[in-house]
Amino acid sequence: MTQHYLFDAPRVGLLPSGPRNLISDVPGVRVGHTTLSQGDVQTGVTIIKPHAQDPFLFQVPAAVSVINGFGKSVGLVQVQELGVLETPIALTNTFSVGEVATAQIREAIAAHPAIGRDWPTVNPLVFECNDGYLNDIQAFAVSANDYAQACQSATEHFEQGSVGAGRGMSCFALKGGIGSASRVATVSAGQQYVVGALVLANFGRLANLTVKGRLVGQYLLANGLSVDRKAVADSAAGIPEKGSIIILLATNAPLDTRQLHRVSKRAAAGLARMGSVYGHGSGDIALAFTTAYQIPAIAENAMPATSMLHESRIDPLFETAAEATEQAIVNALWAATSVRGRMGNHRWAINDVLPQWREYFEKEGQ
Amino acid sequence: MTQHYLFDAPRVGLLPSGPRNLISDVPGVRVGHTTLSQGDVQTGVTIIKPHAQDPFLFQVPAAVSVINGFGKSVGLVQVQELGVLETPIALTNTFSVGEVATAQIREAIAAHPAIGRDWPTVNPLVFECNDGYLNDIQAFAVSANDYAQACQSATEHFEQGSVGAGRGMSCFALKGGIGSASRVATVSAGQQYVVGALVLANFGRLANLTVKGRLVGQYLLANGLSVDRKAVADSAAGIPEKGSIIILLATNAPLDTRQLHRVSKRAAAGLARMGSVYGHGSGDIALAFTTAYQIPAIAENAMPATSMLHESRIDPLFETAAEATEQAIVNALWAATSVRGRMGNHRWAINDVLPQWREYFEKEGQ
Amino acid sequence: MTQHYLFDAPRVGLLPSGPRNLISDVPGVRVGHTTLSQGDVQTGVTIIKPHAQDPFLFQVPAAVSVINGFGKSVGLVQVQELGVLETPIALTNTFSVGEVATAQIREAIAAHPAIGRDWPTVNPLVFECNDGYLNDIQAFAVSANDYAQACQSATEHFEQGSVGAGRGMSCFALKGGIGSASRVATVSAGQQYVVGALVLANFGRLANLTVKGRLVGQYLLANGLSVDRKAVADSAAGIPEKGSIIILLATNAPLDTRQLHRVSKRAAAGLARMGSVYGHGSGDIALAFTTAYQIPAIAENAMPATSMLHESRIDPLFETAAEATEQAIVNALWAATSVRGRMGNHRWAINDVLPQWREYFEKEGQ
Amino acid sequence: MTQHYLFDAPRVGLLPSGPRNLISDVPGVRVGHTTLSQGDVQTGVTIIKPHAQDPFLFQVPAAVSVINGFGKSVGLVQVQELGVLETPIALTNTFSVGEVATAQIREAIAAHPAIGRDWPTVNPLVFECNDGYLNDIQAFAVSANDYAQACQSATEHFEQGSVGAGRGMSCFALKGGIGSASRVATVSAGQQYVVGALVLANFGRLANLTVKGRLVGQYLLANGLSVDRKAVADSAAGIPEKGSIIILLATNAPLDTRQLHRVSKRAAAGLARMGSVYGHGSGDIALAFTTAYQIPAIAENAMPATSMLHESRIDPLFETAAEATEQAIVNALWAATSVRGRMGNHRWAINDVLPQWREYFEKEGQ
Repeated sequence: MTQHYLFDAPRVGLLPSGPRNLISDVPGVRVGHTTLSQGDVQTGVTIIKPHAQDPFLFQVPAAVSVINGFGKSVGLVQVQELGVLETPIALTNTFSVGEVATAQIREAIAAHPAIGRDWPTVNPLVFECNDGYLNDIQAFAVSANDYAQACQSATEHFEQGSVGAGRGMSCFALKGGIGSASRVATVSAGQQYVVGALVLANFGRLANLTVKGRLVGQYLLANGLSVDRKAVADSAAGIPEKGSIIILLATNAPLDTRQLHRVSKRAAAGLARMGSVYGHGSGDIALAFTTAYQIPAIAENAMPATSMLHESRIDPLFETAAEATEQAIVNALWAATSVRGRMGNHRWAINDVLPQWREYFEKEGQ
Repeated sequence: MTQHYLFDAPRVGLLPSGPRNLISDVPGVRVGHTTLSQGDVQTGVTIIKPHAQDPFLFQVPAAVSVINGFGKSVGLVQVQELGVLETPIALTNTFSVGEVATAQIREAIAAHPAIGRDWPTVNPLVFECNDGYLNDIQAFAVSANDYAQACQSATEHFEQGSVGAGRGMSCFALKGGIGSASRVATVSAGQQYVVGALVLANFGRLANLTVKGRLVGQYLLANGLSVDRKAVADSAAGIPEKGSIIILLATNAPLDTRQLHRVSKRAAAGLARMGSVYGHGSGDIALAFTTAYQIPAIAENAMPATSMLHESRIDPLFETAAEATEQAIVNALWAATSVRGRMGNHRWAINDVLPQWREYFEKEGQ
Repeated sequence: MTQHYLFDAPRVGLLPSGPRNLISDVPGVRVGHTTLSQGDVQTGVTIIKPHAQDPFLFQVPAAVSVINGFGKSVGLVQVQELGVLETPIALTNTFSVGEVATAQIREAIAAHPAIGRDWPTVNPLVFECNDGYLNDIQAFAVSANDYAQACQSATEHFEQGSVGAGRGMSCFALKGGIGSASRVATVSAGQQYVVGALVLANFGRLANLTVKGRLVGQYLLANGLSVDRKAVADSAAGIPEKGSIIILLATNAPLDTRQLHRVSKRAAAGLARMGSVYGHGSGDIALAFTTAYQIPAIAENAMPATSMLHESRIDPLFETAAEATEQAIVNALWAATSVRGRMGNHRWAINDVLPQWREYFEKEGQ
Repeated sequence: MTQHYLFDAPRVGLLPSGPRNLISDVPGVRVGHTTLSQGDVQTGVTIIKPHAQDPFLFQVPAAVSVINGFGKSVGLVQVQELGVLETPIALTNTFSVGEVATAQIREAIAAHPAIGRDWPTVNPLVFECNDGYLNDIQAFAVSANDYAQACQSATEHFEQGSVGAGRGMSCFALKGGIGSASRVATVSAGQQYVVGALVLANFGRLANLTVKGRLVGQYLLANGLSVDRKAVADSAAGIPEKGSIIILLATNAPLDTRQLHRVSKRAAAGLARMGSVYGHGSGDIALAFTTAYQIPAIAENAMPATSMLHESRIDPLFETAAEATEQAIVNALWAATSVRGRMGNHRWAINDVLPQWREYFEKEGQ
């Protein structure tokens, strides 16, 4: 872990974090990035692996919640039907979904030539946001190799902010991108689980930005800080957002897919705390998976016999899911570095426009 | 409008309210209550009428969003399929749903004896929360007559707080009940619509109560104010909530049922701002309807030809829906009066435990 | 088992039946009826118990598929969220849903006074069809006692046809009602499960009646048999159906709620084979439950650790679910006896209008 | 229209067809194919255009029904949220979805360079089935140019069977592919609409094949006709299908997206009549769109003010949707020609194994 991984960000909520405050606090989960940053191309790929084994042979239970479906992610239909992941989860820009999905298929058939022949086909799973403000999205810059590199670089200690799929993303008219966090849920005496979140944050109008209950966006607009003039103008003109947010939740709690679906829906609560109302043009999608057990692809292998969490003890998972989501968004904002991209378009990192944020929050009380 | 309708409550958000700051700012919408308050019986009925005409003949477009389905409301299946209301909307306690639904059927067949014979049956629509802490819910105290009286008393100027279906409800371990609010949405230059909300608020753990971004619940717990000792104990023990919230949204914007469904989903954002994560045991359900046009029950009558709102202009409706919901919950709390009910159980109104709330929010900044 | 339980009906499909060809071939499942038949009152209640234990303490996994939501059943919202049954399943006429639901609540609180107080409320589960042609549905004739009697009479050997909730039901303008069947699924070598179906059949236009792929309805219309003249006239006039069908599926296969949902959706295939297109006015709802394991209501009790069926072996359950549904509808028609009811309205049993059905099917080949 | 477009097929159902018995009986709808047939490559692309105008500027109302979600189609999330089509609908093999989706994006940005920049992104819509038995799906043979060619060749008079995306598809272990049909719905006196269907048929086990209610599959298995020996063996061994079916429905009836969703669900009834139970491994998806009105992409353009069909008159659309689907599947089978492909794998056209089908159905009666 090198120095530049470190950043400071406001701490939201009251629940305890895991040791890294990352999605990788859920044992086995790793994250990899490929970042493309050259002139008008400011984009990339981020991947999440639930475990170190073959993803097709050892499938991970998962569920999806479409908070607002203005989005082009692929793979959700089958996840909703079958409740499992078959590939690493990939994040990229909207126009690169096809390329990355094809790369996932090629990777799976390279490992298992029977796929699509004697075996069923594989379900690629690619989430996206539109980074077209900073990135020349029409350049289709992401390649299959970029996906492969992201997979190879997967690690428990990964960077946040303007990296990977987050390179060109905007959030509240500031620089957005990748953020991650974790919270620890105590479901009964002595029984704890971790819920980790990783977001690709590319949503929100500046006027709505809320952190720790404070109207930071209103403050920035009113105090004429060096925010993009265009962002201010857009916000004043009521121009709708064209962003999105992808929220990935991991846990080691033993949950079936119905329960995972319930957990995934709580991401929307964390998102709302940041000021979002799930804007019309925003593809807001949450996915939750568990590492507590695996489903074998081969029917001859033994199915797991897992005691799921008693439903009446699920509230702590809801609370940690919401808070980890909220913190991951905050971390995406504060880890981000300012980026200049396509046609000179520029997004400020919040650290550059509100460097005195500690004083701001102190003055605002709490 | 008599004096006791007035109350002061914190103002949330930045959007303008309608003239009454009530769901009845949507022209035609009226609300009626029957309140039962005698010893262990602390319960009631609240009804909402979208217009003054026959509800079965002139059906109102509507859509439902089940935020968390731990609830026993009736009528949702058909609303989801057909997208219309056929009766007034009724709110009551969990165990009185059957009685009130039957009353709705009887009312409809009294007006139209062909219902269930030459005509299709009528779809009762009754929402509920569990008021069993303050109310002897096992007494099944609500009668068909109580429903009829609530219908007869429907008015644009209605009471909030510990009235009607809200009589016995608890919210964040304080006194909850009925709250209402409205916001005005400007969808394009010179084009405005109203979004009104009415809630039956019976949800939340005290530790999570958040108002205007401030952790009021934590403040109350820390400052030993005269909150129920049981509430404090429960909260500390992590006992899950057994409450619920029903959120009804009305608008005069021309929306089809798909769009109304989208609007109804934004109630969850307003709910989250209050500290809710849509707890496991909470039946959190939102319904949105429009008064912009009506669907005739009789096929021979002309169907409306309405220009729906262009989708790209729907964001202001999302923002007003979320904020009206948030304000309606705040109003439910601040309009409520303390109630003692079943077995001496007691809920404090927030006004009684935090009478100095103006100073609190001032000190907290913003 | 007395003589009048016996009837002959065409055999559909190719899969093997269980020993009784009833839903009670799933071990533990029992069915009870209360039949009301006096003049204009021709209605009743039917209940299904998944097991002999307390239904609230030992909850049964279940899932619902709304094929067409023109229906007033209660309890579905919570089944969809939590995936369990908490009461016996009740069937009755549309206007008696409230009464029966309240009876279910009263039964549960009689057994467990903590319900709605220290424990959560109970979720009543009542399905319905409109028997208003033969039954004076506006008489609200079904009482709480009728529900209690149906529960007490539950048995593995139960009657079909014009009994219980099926007393006043019509199907394809003939006499409908209760039907049941079972099929045995071989999911892998030596591994078998039973899928049982019970239907409340009250749907269909005569012109569409199809049995074993034969257009029986067209044949009856063309051959001037003693079918209701009104049915013929309605059918010719294209008058839409106002019926419904409720389909209950039981299995002893170990399935989680996602898998049960998949099984429940296959009821629609069996329904389609009878000529249905899930008509607009028909409330067509399927529910599937498993007896393979139970969920304890009390969190302190051990949760089951069950190896679910491998997904790739689920097809035999789909095929048996569809075929058991189809056979159950056929059995409802052929077990039915002709009934005269409200205002002299009359429905013929198919056995009365097509007594020579064996010859008919022989002549039609296959 | 050249000679080879003609084929004879059994006629199912009783409703009248449109003049061509094709989806293009809905005015404006056109279909184009690119067929790849060389050795191990037996695949292609088929596209459907709802009208001749720019698909992004003049969006067509649509709704989706996921009958069984074992599928990798892209674009459904946004169609479900917004209820419109923005591109031609594309059909291809499972592994070519990414390539075709990217081609759709490139086509849209070529026409409108603002897409993904000042305008929102475009939603590609690609459906798929797995043709890996006859086609070397791992060759990724479909190119962007193939998609462009299919678009350019769109016509009202299009070929069916082993063409376009249907080139390598199998259906009931016979040769499947593209089929189309139409039916005319009379919704009230003098008021008619057309419902057209186009299917990509790649589903089903031979044992289940049912046509006009006759167990054709059982007949073929029993009578040792020249069906693939592997198909027979698989069928006997109970090997699950790995197929899929895509069902596209077009109509000129004025329906909103909720109503279109209801229509799309009736495709499942037509599918069931062919013997399908929506097998586990089958991605069975239906989409319905209307040409009755369009939604402008640009908010400044006037929104349509259309009188939708009264709900009580929707049954004829349900019946035509089911029957057009059924007929389209029959046409896919009978229009197909036998194909030999990957590794010498071969699928017989039903016309080759049951050339005497007219006699078969006559003998079977009806």
